[in-house]
Amino acid sequence: MKRSLGAKTLLFPTPVLLVGTYDQTGKANLMTAAWGGICCSQPPCVAVSLRKATYSYACIVERKAFTVGIACESRVMEADYVGMVSGRDTDKFARTKLTLVRSEIVDAPYADELPVILECRLLRAVEIGLHTQFIGEIIDVKADSDVIDDDGRPDIMKIKPLIYDTSHKGYHSAGPLLAEAFSTGKKLQT
Amino acid sequence: MKRSLGAKTLLFPTPVLLVGTYDQTGKANLMTAAWGGICCSQPPCVAVSLRKATYSYACIVERKAFTVGIACESRVMEADYVGMVSGRDTDKFARTKLTLVRSEIVDAPYADELPVILECRLLRAVEIGLHTQFIGEIIDVKADSDVIDDDGRPDIMKIKPLIYDTSHKGYHSAGPLLAEAFSTGKKLQT
Repeated sequence: MKRSLGAKTLLFPTPVLLVGTYDQTGKANLMTAAWGGICCSQPPCVAVSLRKATYSYACIVERKAFTVGIACESRVMEADYVGMVSGRDTDKFARTKLTLVRSEIVDAPYADELPVILECRLLRAVEIGLHTQFIGEIIDVKADSDVIDDDGRPDIMKIKPLIYDTSHKGYHSAGPLLAEAFSTGKKLQT
Repeated sequence: MKRSLGAKTLLFPTPVLLVGTYDQTGKANLMTAAWGGICCSQPPCVAVSLRKATYSYACIVERKAFTVGIACESRVMEADYVGMVSGRDTDKFARTKLTLVRSEIVDAPYADELPVILECRLLRAVEIGLHTQFIGEIIDVKADSDVIDDDGRPDIMKIKPLIYDTSHKGYHSAGPLLAEAFSTGKKLQT
Protein backbone atom coordinates (compact mmCIF):
# COMPACT_ATOMS: atom_id res chain seq x y z
CA MET A 1 0.00 0.00 0.00
CA LYS A 2 1.57 3.25 -1.16
CA ARG A 3 1.21 6.64 0.47
CA SER A 4 1.53 10.00 -1.25
CA LEU A 5 4.33 12.13 0.21
CA GLY A 6 3.97 15.17 -2.04
CA ALA A 7 6.38 16.78 -4.49
CA LYS A 8 9.70 16.25 -2.71
CA THR A 9 13.33 15.74 -3.67
CA LEU A 10 13.57 12.19 -2.36
CA LEU A 11 16.01 9.87 -4.11
CA PHE A 12 18.00 6.90 -2.84
CA PRO A 13 20.96 7.04 -2.97
CA THR A 14 22.35 10.47 -3.75
CA PRO A 15 26.11 11.13 -3.76
CA VAL A 16 28.13 13.51 -1.60
CA LEU A 17 30.17 15.55 -4.07
CA LEU A 18 32.75 18.13 -3.01
CA VAL A 19 32.90 20.72 -5.77
CA GLY A 20 36.24 22.55 -6.05
CA THR A 21 36.49 25.98 -7.67
CA TYR A 22 38.58 29.14 -7.89
CA ASP A 23 36.98 32.56 -7.65
CA GLN A 24 38.04 35.48 -9.85
CA THR A 25 40.86 36.43 -7.45
CA GLY A 26 42.23 32.87 -7.37
CA LYS A 27 40.87 31.94 -3.94
CA ALA A 28 40.04 28.24 -3.76
CA ASN A 29 36.72 26.96 -2.48
CA LEU A 30 35.04 23.65 -1.80
CA MET A 31 31.32 23.02 -1.38
CA THR A 32 29.10 20.01 -0.88
CA ALA A 33 26.51 19.01 -3.47
CA ALA A 34 24.14 16.06 -3.28
CA TRP A 35 22.18 17.12 -6.36
CA GLY A 36 24.25 15.55 -9.09
CA GLY A 37 25.26 12.48 -11.02
CA ILE A 38 26.72 11.16 -14.24
CA CYS A 39 24.69 12.47 -17.18
CA CYS A 40 26.45 11.25 -20.35
CA SER A 41 28.88 8.51 -21.37
CA GLN A 42 30.26 10.13 -24.55
CA PRO A 43 31.58 12.67 -23.83
CA PRO A 44 31.83 11.53 -20.21
CA CYS A 45 29.95 14.14 -18.20
CA VAL A 46 28.90 14.77 -14.63
CA ALA A 47 26.20 17.21 -13.53
CA VAL A 48 26.11 19.16 -10.29
CA SER A 49 23.33 21.56 -9.37
CA LEU A 50 24.03 24.69 -7.35
CA ARG A 51 21.88 27.58 -6.22
CA LYS A 52 22.74 30.94 -7.74
CA ALA A 53 23.22 32.29 -4.22
CA THR A 54 26.24 30.08 -3.57
CA TYR A 55 29.77 31.37 -3.76
CA SER A 56 30.74 28.49 -6.03
CA TYR A 57 28.11 29.41 -8.62
CA ALA A 58 29.93 32.54 -9.78
CA CYS A 59 33.26 30.71 -9.63
CA ILE A 60 32.12 28.07 -12.11
CA VAL A 61 30.60 30.69 -14.41
CA GLU A 62 33.86 32.68 -14.25
CA ARG A 63 36.39 29.87 -14.61
CA LYS A 64 34.32 27.46 -16.68
CA ALA A 65 35.80 24.57 -14.73
CA PHE A 66 35.35 22.64 -11.50
CA THR A 67 36.44 19.45 -9.81
CA VAL A 68 34.22 16.86 -8.18
CA GLY A 69 35.74 15.05 -5.22
CA ILE A 70 34.09 11.94 -3.81
CA ALA A 71 33.48 12.45 -0.09
CA CYS A 72 34.57 9.44 1.94
CA GLU A 73 33.92 8.06 5.42
CA SER A 74 37.12 9.41 6.97
CA ARG A 75 36.18 12.95 5.82
CA VAL A 76 32.53 13.07 6.80
CA MET A 77 33.09 16.00 9.17
CA GLU A 78 34.85 18.05 6.48
CA ALA A 79 32.24 17.10 3.87
CA ASP A 80 29.45 18.29 6.12
CA TYR A 81 31.28 21.47 7.12
CA VAL A 82 32.00 22.73 3.60
CA GLY A 83 28.27 22.43 2.89
CA MET A 84 27.34 24.53 5.94
CA VAL A 85 29.41 27.68 5.47
CA SER A 86 30.06 29.99 2.53
CA GLY A 87 33.37 30.56 0.78
CA ARG A 88 32.43 34.24 0.77
CA ASP A 89 33.58 34.65 4.36
CA THR A 90 35.49 31.44 5.05
CA ASP A 91 38.70 29.91 3.72
CA LYS A 92 37.43 26.34 3.81
CA PHE A 93 40.73 24.74 2.81
CA ALA A 94 42.46 26.50 5.71
CA ARG A 95 39.69 25.70 8.18
CA THR A 96 39.45 22.01 7.29
CA LYS A 97 43.24 21.67 6.86
CA LEU A 98 42.54 19.79 3.64
CA THR A 99 45.49 19.88 1.23
CA LEU A 100 44.83 22.14 -1.74
CA VAL A 101 46.02 20.76 -5.07
CA ARG A 102 45.84 22.80 -8.27
CA SER A 103 44.55 20.69 -11.14
CA GLU A 104 47.00 20.68 -14.00
CA ILE A 105 44.36 20.19 -16.65
CA VAL A 106 41.36 22.30 -15.58
CA ASP A 107 41.20 25.68 -13.88
CA ALA A 108 40.06 24.38 -10.48
CA PRO A 109 41.48 23.01 -7.24
CA TYR A 110 40.77 19.86 -5.27
CA ALA A 111 41.43 18.38 -1.83
CA ASP A 112 44.14 15.74 -1.95
CA GLU A 113 42.57 13.78 0.91
CA LEU A 114 39.56 12.80 -1.20
CA PRO A 115 40.19 9.39 -2.77
CA VAL A 116 38.68 10.07 -6.22
CA ILE A 117 38.63 13.35 -8.16
CA LEU A 118 36.85 14.20 -11.42
CA GLU A 119 38.45 17.12 -13.25
CA CYS A 120 35.79 18.89 -15.30
CA ARG A 121 35.50 21.57 -17.93
CA LEU A 122 32.14 23.34 -17.99
CA LEU A 123 30.15 22.16 -20.98
CA ARG A 124 26.80 23.76 -20.26
CA ALA A 125 24.81 25.54 -17.57
CA VAL A 126 21.13 24.61 -17.48
CA GLU A 127 18.86 26.98 -15.56
CA ILE A 128 16.09 24.91 -14.01
CA GLY A 129 14.67 26.87 -11.09
CA LEU A 130 16.23 27.46 -7.69
CA HIS A 131 19.15 25.37 -8.91
CA THR A 132 21.30 25.73 -11.98
CA GLN A 133 22.74 22.53 -13.30
CA PHE A 134 26.36 22.66 -14.36
CA ILE A 135 27.26 19.93 -16.82
CA GLY A 136 30.97 19.26 -16.77
CA GLU A 137 32.92 17.20 -19.24
CA ILE A 138 35.15 14.83 -17.29
CA ILE A 139 38.64 15.45 -18.66
CA ASP A 140 40.34 13.05 -16.25
CA VAL A 141 39.67 11.01 -13.14
CA LYS A 142 42.38 10.77 -10.53
CA ALA A 143 42.33 8.22 -7.75
CA ASP A 144 44.58 7.36 -4.83
CA SER A 145 46.82 4.37 -5.55
CA ASP A 146 45.59 2.64 -2.43
CA VAL A 147 41.95 2.55 -3.61
CA ILE A 148 42.90 1.06 -6.99
CA ASP A 149 42.74 -2.71 -7.44
CA ASP A 150 45.23 -4.84 -9.32
CA ASP A 151 42.99 -4.57 -12.38
CA GLY A 152 43.60 -0.81 -12.44
CA ARG A 153 40.07 0.10 -11.39
CA PRO A 154 39.06 1.94 -8.22
CA ASP A 155 37.39 -0.23 -5.58
CA ILE A 156 34.23 1.16 -4.00
CA MET A 157 34.89 -0.77 -0.80
CA LYS A 158 38.28 0.94 -0.47
CA ILE A 159 36.98 4.37 -1.47
CA LYS A 160 34.26 4.14 1.21
CA PRO A 161 32.11 6.87 -0.40
CA LEU A 162 29.46 8.67 1.59
CA ILE A 163 25.85 8.11 0.64
CA TYR A 164 23.45 10.92 1.36
CA ASP A 165 20.00 10.15 2.68
CA THR A 166 17.67 12.84 1.33
CA SER A 167 14.90 11.80 3.70
CA HIS A 168 16.49 11.98 7.15
CA LYS A 169 19.49 14.04 6.03
CA GLY A 170 22.27 11.75 7.10
CA TYR A 171 25.44 10.24 5.70
CA HIS A 172 25.56 6.49 5.25
CA SER A 173 28.30 4.11 4.20
CA ALA A 174 28.24 1.90 1.11
CA GLY A 175 27.45 -1.70 1.95
CA PRO A 176 28.79 -4.92 0.44
CA LEU A 177 28.34 -6.25 -3.10
CA LEU A 178 24.95 -7.91 -3.63
CA ALA A 179 25.18 -8.93 -7.28
CA GLU A 180 27.10 -8.32 -10.48
CA ALA A 181 25.42 -6.11 -13.08
CA PHE A 182 24.58 -7.50 -16.53
CA SER A 183 24.66 -10.91 -14.90
CA THR A 184 22.05 -11.57 -12.21
CA GLY A 185 19.30 -10.43 -14.61
CA LYS A 186 20.16 -13.24 -17.03
CA LYS A 187 18.05 -15.61 -14.94
CA LEU A 188 14.98 -13.82 -16.33
CA GLN A 189 16.21 -13.92 -19.91
CA THR A 190 15.59 -17.56 -20.74
CA MET B 1 49.71 9.54 -4.45
CA LYS B 2 47.08 9.89 -7.16
CA ARG B 3 46.99 8.06 -10.47
CA SER B 4 45.34 9.26 -13.67
CA LEU B 5 42.60 6.92 -14.90
CA GLY B 6 41.53 8.86 -17.98
CA ALA B 7 38.21 10.44 -18.94
CA LYS B 8 35.76 7.93 -17.46
CA THR B 9 32.26 7.96 -15.99
CA LEU B 10 33.33 7.01 -12.48
CA LEU B 11 31.18 8.31 -9.63
CA PHE B 12 30.44 6.86 -6.20
CA PRO B 13 27.64 6.23 -5.50
CA THR B 14 25.25 6.25 -8.45
CA PRO B 15 21.60 5.24 -8.05
CA VAL B 16 19.70 2.40 -9.72
CA LEU B 17 16.62 4.03 -11.18
CA LEU B 18 13.85 2.10 -12.92
CA VAL B 19 12.29 4.45 -15.44
CA GLY B 20 8.65 3.67 -16.28
CA THR B 21 7.08 4.81 -19.57
CA TYR B 22 4.29 4.14 -22.04
CA ASP B 23 4.95 3.98 -25.76
CA GLN B 24 2.61 5.52 -28.34
CA THR B 25 0.44 2.40 -28.40
CA GLY B 26 0.10 2.32 -24.62
CA LYS B 27 2.54 -0.52 -23.99
CA ALA B 28 4.31 -0.10 -20.65
CA ASN B 29 8.06 -0.35 -20.30
CA LEU B 30 10.66 -0.23 -17.57
CA MET B 31 14.39 0.39 -17.95
CA THR B 32 17.35 0.79 -15.67
CA ALA B 33 19.28 4.05 -15.48
CA ALA B 34 22.28 4.79 -13.31
CA TRP B 35 22.98 8.13 -14.97
CA GLY B 36 20.71 10.38 -12.95
CA GLY B 37 20.07 12.32 -9.80
CA ILE B 38 18.13 15.15 -8.23
CA CYS B 39 18.88 18.37 -10.11
CA CYS B 40 16.69 21.08 -8.57
CA SER B 41 14.85 21.73 -5.28
CA GLN B 42 12.29 24.26 -6.56
CA PRO B 43 10.60 22.96 -8.62
CA PRO B 44 11.66 19.54 -7.33
CA CYS B 45 13.29 17.82 -10.30
CA VAL B 46 15.08 14.60 -11.09
CA ALA B 47 17.26 13.99 -14.14
CA VAL B 48 17.73 10.69 -15.95
CA SER B 49 19.96 10.29 -18.98
CA LEU B 50 19.06 7.84 -21.74
CA ARG B 51 20.59 7.01 -25.09
CA LYS B 52 18.54 7.92 -28.13
CA ALA B 53 18.71 4.27 -29.19
CA THR B 54 16.67 3.09 -26.22
CA TYR B 55 13.01 2.23 -26.49
CA SER B 56 12.24 4.45 -23.52
CA TYR B 57 13.72 7.52 -25.20
CA ALA B 58 10.90 7.85 -27.74
CA CYS B 59 8.33 7.02 -25.06
CA ILE B 60 9.38 9.98 -22.91
CA VAL B 61 9.48 12.31 -25.90
CA GLU B 62 5.99 11.12 -26.91
CA ARG B 63 4.28 11.08 -23.53
CA LYS B 64 6.22 13.88 -21.84
CA ALA B 65 6.14 11.91 -18.61
CA PHE B 66 7.95 9.12 -16.79
CA THR B 67 8.21 7.54 -13.38
CA VAL B 68 11.40 6.81 -11.45
CA GLY B 69 11.27 3.77 -9.19
CA ILE B 70 13.98 3.16 -6.63
CA ALA B 71 15.45 -0.30 -7.18
CA CYS B 72 15.77 -2.25 -3.93
CA GLU B 73 17.69 -5.29 -2.69
CA SER B 74 14.81 -7.72 -3.06
CA ARG B 75 14.44 -6.74 -6.74
CA VAL B 76 18.07 -6.75 -7.84
CA MET B 77 17.45 -9.48 -10.44
CA GLU B 78 14.55 -7.56 -12.01
CA ALA B 79 16.49 -4.27 -11.87
CA ASP B 80 19.39 -5.84 -13.73
CA TYR B 81 17.17 -7.60 -16.25
CA VAL B 82 15.21 -4.53 -17.36
CA GLY B 83 18.55 -2.85 -18.11
CA MET B 84 19.71 -5.74 -20.29
CA VAL B 85 16.85 -6.15 -22.78
CA SER B 86 14.85 -3.73 -24.89
CA GLY B 87 11.15 -2.97 -24.59
CA ARG B 88 11.06 -3.10 -28.38
CA ASP B 89 10.91 -6.89 -28.35
CA THR B 90 10.12 -7.71 -24.72
CA ASP B 91 7.18 -7.11 -22.41
CA LYS B 92 9.28 -6.49 -19.34
CA PHE B 93 6.37 -6.22 -16.92
CA ALA B 94 5.12 -9.64 -18.07
CA ARG B 95 8.56 -11.21 -17.99
CA THR B 96 9.49 -9.91 -14.52
CA LYS B 97 5.96 -10.44 -13.17
CA LEU B 98 6.19 -6.96 -11.63
CA THR B 99 2.78 -5.42 -10.98
CA LEU B 100 1.98 -2.64 -13.43
CA VAL B 101 0.33 0.40 -11.86
CA ARG B 102 -0.92 3.30 -13.97
CA SER B 103 0.04 6.60 -12.37
CA GLU B 104 -3.03 8.72 -11.76
CA ILE B 105 -1.18 12.00 -12.10
CA VAL B 106 1.32 11.52 -14.92
CA ASP B 107 1.08 9.58 -18.18
CA ALA B 108 3.41 6.75 -17.14
CA PRO B 109 3.36 3.40 -15.33
CA TYR B 110 5.37 2.03 -12.44
CA ALA B 111 6.08 -1.29 -10.74
CA ASP B 112 4.21 -1.61 -7.47
CA GLU B 113 6.96 -3.77 -5.92
CA LEU B 114 9.42 -0.84 -5.88
CA PRO B 115 9.27 0.86 -2.48
CA VAL B 116 9.55 4.48 -3.65
CA ILE B 117 8.21 6.02 -6.86
CA LEU B 118 8.74 9.52 -8.25
CA GLU B 119 6.01 10.57 -10.68
CA CYS B 120 7.45 13.05 -13.16
CA ARG B 121 6.32 15.38 -15.88
CA LEU B 122 8.95 16.10 -18.53
CA LEU B 123 10.28 19.60 -18.03
CA ARG B 124 13.16 19.62 -20.46
CA ALA B 125 15.32 17.37 -22.64
CA VAL B 126 18.99 18.34 -22.74
CA GLU B 127 20.99 16.84 -25.62
CA ILE B 128 24.50 16.26 -24.34
CA GLY B 129 26.13 13.62 -26.54
CA LEU B 130 25.47 9.89 -26.58
CA HIS B 131 22.96 10.53 -23.79
CA THR B 132 20.03 12.89 -23.63
CA GLN B 133 19.16 14.09 -20.19
CA PHE B 134 15.47 14.18 -19.35
CA ILE B 135 14.66 16.60 -16.57
CA GLY B 136 11.42 15.66 -14.89
CA GLU B 137 9.47 17.74 -12.45
CA ILE B 138 8.54 15.54 -9.50
CA ILE B 139 4.77 15.88 -9.18
CA ASP B 140 4.46 13.39 -6.33
CA VAL B 141 6.48 10.79 -4.47
CA LYS B 142 4.75 7.60 -3.41
CA ALA B 143 6.24 5.20 -0.89
CA ASP B 144 5.17 1.90 0.63
CA SER B 145 3.67 2.34 4.10
CA ASP B 146 6.13 -0.18 5.52
CA VAL B 147 9.18 1.92 4.56
CA ILE B 148 7.76 5.08 6.17
CA ASP B 149 8.76 5.95 9.73
CA ASP B 150 6.48 7.32 12.42
CA ASP B 151 7.65 10.83 11.44
CA GLY B 152 6.10 10.33 8.00
CA ARG B 153 9.41 10.13 6.18
CA PRO B 154 10.75 7.15 4.22
CA ASP B 155 13.57 5.27 5.92
CA ILE B 156 16.58 4.42 3.75
CA MET B 157 17.34 1.38 5.90
CA LYS B 158 13.86 0.01 5.20
CA ILE B 159 13.91 0.95 1.51
CA LYS B 160 17.23 -0.90 1.06
CA PRO B 161 18.06 0.92 -2.19
CA LEU B 162 20.61 -0.51 -4.60
CA ILE B 163 23.82 1.39 -5.10
CA TYR B 164 25.54 1.03 -8.44
CA ASP B 165 29.29 0.73 -8.59
CA THR B 166 30.39 2.36 -11.86
CA SER B 167 33.86 0.89 -11.55
CA HIS B 168 33.30 -2.86 -11.19
CA LYS B 169 29.67 -2.75 -12.38
CA GLY B 170 28.01 -4.25 -9.36
CA TYR B 171 25.06 -3.57 -7.11
CA HIS B 172 25.79 -2.79 -3.47
CA SER B 173 23.57 -2.24 -0.46
CA ALA B 174 23.35 0.97 1.55
CA GLY B 175 25.24 0.74 4.82
CA PRO B 176 24.41 2.17 8.24
CA LEU B 177 24.19 5.82 9.29
CA LEU B 178 27.60 7.37 9.93
CA ALA B 179 26.68 10.94 10.87
CA GLU B 180 23.84 13.45 10.73
CA ALA B 181 24.12 16.13 8.06
CA PHE B 182 24.30 19.83 9.07
CA SER B 183 25.57 18.57 12.40
CA THR B 184 28.90 16.74 12.41
CA GLY B 185 30.48 19.64 10.50
CA LYS B 186 29.74 22.03 13.37
CA LYS B 187 32.89 20.80 15.12
CA LEU B 188 34.89 22.74 12.52
CA GLN B 189 32.79 25.89 12.86
CA THR B 190 34.09 27.25 16.13
